[in-house]
Amino acid sequence: MSENMNERQIPYKIYLEEHEMPRRWYNLRADMQNKPAPLLNPGTLQPMTAAELEGVFCAELVKQELDDSTAYFDIPEEILSFYKMYRPAPLVRAYCLEEKLKTPAKIYYKFEGNNTSGSHKLNSAIAQAYYAKKQGLKGVTTETGAGQWGTALSMACSYLDLDLKVYMVKVSYEQKPFRREVMRTYGASVTPSPSSETAVGRKILEEFPGTGGSLGCAISEAVEMAVTNEGYRYVLGSVLSQVLLHQSIIGLETKIAMDKYGIRPDVIVGCAGGGSNLGGLIAPFMGEKLRGEADYQIIAVEPASCPSFTRGKYVYDFCDTGMICPLAKMYTLGSGFMPAPNHAGGLRFHGMSSILSQLYADGLMEARAVGQTEVFAAAEQFARVEGILPAPESAHAIKGAIDEAMKCKETGEEKTILFGLTGTGYFDLTAYEKYHDGKMDDTVPTDEELRKGLAGVPQFPGNEV
Amino acid sequence: MSENMNERQIPYKIYLEEHEMPRRWYNLRADMQNKPAPLLNPGTLQPMTAAELEGVFCAELVKQELDDSTAYFDIPEEILSFYKMYRPAPLVRAYCLEEKLKTPAKIYYKFEGNNTSGSHKLNSAIAQAYYAKKQGLKGVTTETGAGQWGTALSMACSYLDLDLKVYMVKVSYEQKPFRREVMRTYGASVTPSPSSETAVGRKILEEFPGTGGSLGCAISEAVEMAVTNEGYRYVLGSVLSQVLLHQSIIGLETKIAMDKYGIRPDVIVGCAGGGSNLGGLIAPFMGEKLRGEADYQIIAVEPASCPSFTRGKYVYDFCDTGMICPLAKMYTLGSGFMPAPNHAGGLRFHGMSSILSQLYADGLMEARAVGQTEVFAAAEQFARVEGILPAPESAHAIKGAIDEAMKCKETGEEKTILFGLTGTGYFDLTAYEKYHDGKMDDTVPTDEELRKGLAGVPQFPGNEV
Repeated sequence: MSENMNERQIPYKIYLEEHEMPRRWYNLRADMQNKPAPLLNPGTLQPMTAAELEGVFCAELVKQELDDSTAYFDIPEEILSFYKMYRPAPLVRAYCLEEKLKTPAKIYYKFEGNNTSGSHKLNSAIAQAYYAKKQGLKGVTTETGAGQWGTALSMACSYLDLDLKVYMVKVSYEQKPFRREVMRTYGASVTPSPSSETAVGRKILEEFPGTGGSLGCAISEAVEMAVTNEGYRYVLGSVLSQVLLHQSIIGLETKIAMDKYGIRPDVIVGCAGGGSNLGGLIAPFMGEKLRGEADYQIIAVEPASCPSFTRGKYVYDFCDTGMICPLAKMYTLGSGFMPAPNHAGGLRFHGMSSILSQLYADGLMEARAVGQTEVFAAAEQFARVEGILPAPESAHAIKGAIDEAMKCKETGEEKTILFGLTGTGYFDLTAYEKYHDGKMDDTVPTDEELRKGLAGVPQFPGNEV
Repeated sequence: MSENMNERQIPYKIYLEEHEMPRRWYNLRADMQNKPAPLLNPGTLQPMTAAELEGVFCAELVKQELDDSTAYFDIPEEILSFYKMYRPAPLVRAYCLEEKLKTPAKIYYKFEGNNTSGSHKLNSAIAQAYYAKKQGLKGVTTETGAGQWGTALSMACSYLDLDLKVYMVKVSYEQKPFRREVMRTYGASVTPSPSSETAVGRKILEEFPGTGGSLGCAISEAVEMAVTNEGYRYVLGSVLSQVLLHQSIIGLETKIAMDKYGIRPDVIVGCAGGGSNLGGLIAPFMGEKLRGEADYQIIAVEPASCPSFTRGKYVYDFCDTGMICPLAKMYTLGSGFMPAPNHAGGLRFHGMSSILSQLYADGLMEARAVGQTEVFAAAEQFARVEGILPAPESAHAIKGAIDEAMKCKETGEEKTILFGLTGTGYFDLTAYEKYHDGKMDDTVPTDEELRKGLAGVPQFPGNEV
């Protein structure tokens, strides 16, 4: 088939066949010369051991978290079967967008939104649920803010008959009844956080009776529920290296599809919050770059209102606002940092995956911060010609890709641009409404606010902010 | 490839390649011995002429509406290009559902929800918008209730730079702000109906100041706006024969995919409101049945609260509540019939496609009415194992298919069941919430209510109720 590939028009959508789907996840850390710094126990400042982590996480996932030398992990058959429900995901040639922009660039995007959770989160949710089930656990706990991760995990747990307890930030619980309802459809129990079910929740409710909650507080409740209940563990949808491992399926599929049609990206663009999607998309390409086999320009696009790469510090910090999780070395705005209240969508985590942080520190990728209004303008432009209503998070990558395509228009370069379209915006229409009504604001944190956020970074030798 | 097909496992999802996609629509009427009865002018009771219809509809669409002998219509290149944005749609083997039901039946579904409108409606929306554009029109008008059709048409019009004015039933406009917002993203103007923009709207507002509106009223406003504005026409998303023609793409794609893998359905199940999806899905299969080449059991599933096939009369009736549209011969509950206010989702049209009505009258297909609660139970069961949250409308077909699969379990028959999964339920979560909270009711119309509804059927010789 490949001989006459050049003569053949590349289709709008490339779907791999089932037998072409990757059967192994790729662990990018194996090819990194400078490994990401290990998680530290905040009490001893020593690297977290497997035994310490297994109180909170499933044993198999702890193994994956700590392994920075095994390049490939076989995907268990049961997970492959689940993947076949919604994968392979299409690699789309954005013919209509190219035409609209009148750019000589060739634009491709990997679309991960063709499933009810509406995003790539399902790729790791099923893996984490599977290992929990295999370990004989009764269930898992987690937190959710915007709701994509909670929905994905509820789908995975329902499929495996695993109990799921989701702590949903109270203000989201009230403002996003539809997200809550999807999770209920999948049999998850969804509790607005802070709740009176946990000690930490009760304490917070007593101190701040009217609070709408926060992601940090929801994490604390979920972790408490996991460690105090026999047969439960806590799971997390981003930031961790295990999550990037599972998400490598995105990049691997993309690479196979591109190789099949002889396509080679010059620029790869992804949105960055905790790093799960970006890390997954770039994995095999960055692997080639690390091994000196190929070069790619890799661009992380983050919100200007939560700019961890572009304005954060590369130090050890807590992963949660409650300061109960291990310390991770990462670009961080401080675990107490909160993006402006009118920040729409996700990408609001104060830190960044340790893997991506190390790659960025080593100059192997770039980062750009973009404002909300321009992100929604790009989202709308994309929706009108490509027919997919993107999630606000994904729209950051669209904005980055359009910017690159417009540069090509100026220079005449025929670059091939690949970006990750992580999901759909069906549950984000309140944000779109704000945009249509001209009520979106582009407030970015002041230097003073950033200084305050970083004040919570733990101080020890070699970790000066 | 077909030689070793039997040895090969049928994949979870069959995607055709672009070059395998149908390039013609199929006009089922060409193979019908008993043609559907023509539309009548309500004033003269004579068949509507092209000239009469062209005041309201685009010329090319009028031609398609009146042509009951041409078997195939070429799909224009521009429409094919648009189709490639979201088609081919997958034909899914419901392995997970089969396993859950422990049925020997093989279940397949054609999934039409992989686009932002969330349903099959886009197949006809782009065709109607295309012909309007080609005719040099400025724009089109339409009504929308639940919002699927309005969204689909807004996507199509945005793509073609055509103005769109949607009259959205006021109560939906207020209860479904997200639907309204998607349409705005695609640049449509959305007006709650009744409005003060039209004479008919003002009249209704004066009579019933607090009314939440109705589909009938929204149709009347959209038609008035089209006929009183230079360069505008009215378009409709179901019932009409032209719509079934465009929707034949669903069945044609399904047939090609099944033939490719040597699959032959024994039973074909679809939900039925106005008939657009069911008519499209069954088209090529019914064609074979009409030509005596094959036999299939074909089942329409309708809501027990709006049971036009199972409890309606086969007579000439108005297509709209306002009684300004032509008369169509169809199974009808009377143009004044309104389903119970707590009826969830669409499928609330009082009549049925003339084509399907004739086929049903001729005994070529069956119909079943199902209750809301059992429909949502089927929807949830499906969502949990197949990972797609179905629209309430589509869930009627799921319920029908599950019933057939359970019969196979009893008899041991290994039937192949095909059903149409028309769309996703992301904007229908208020209905799911009702179901979860046990607040769904299964009221069906009383015989007295049906008698009242039919009282508005026009009385003339041969049209006795």
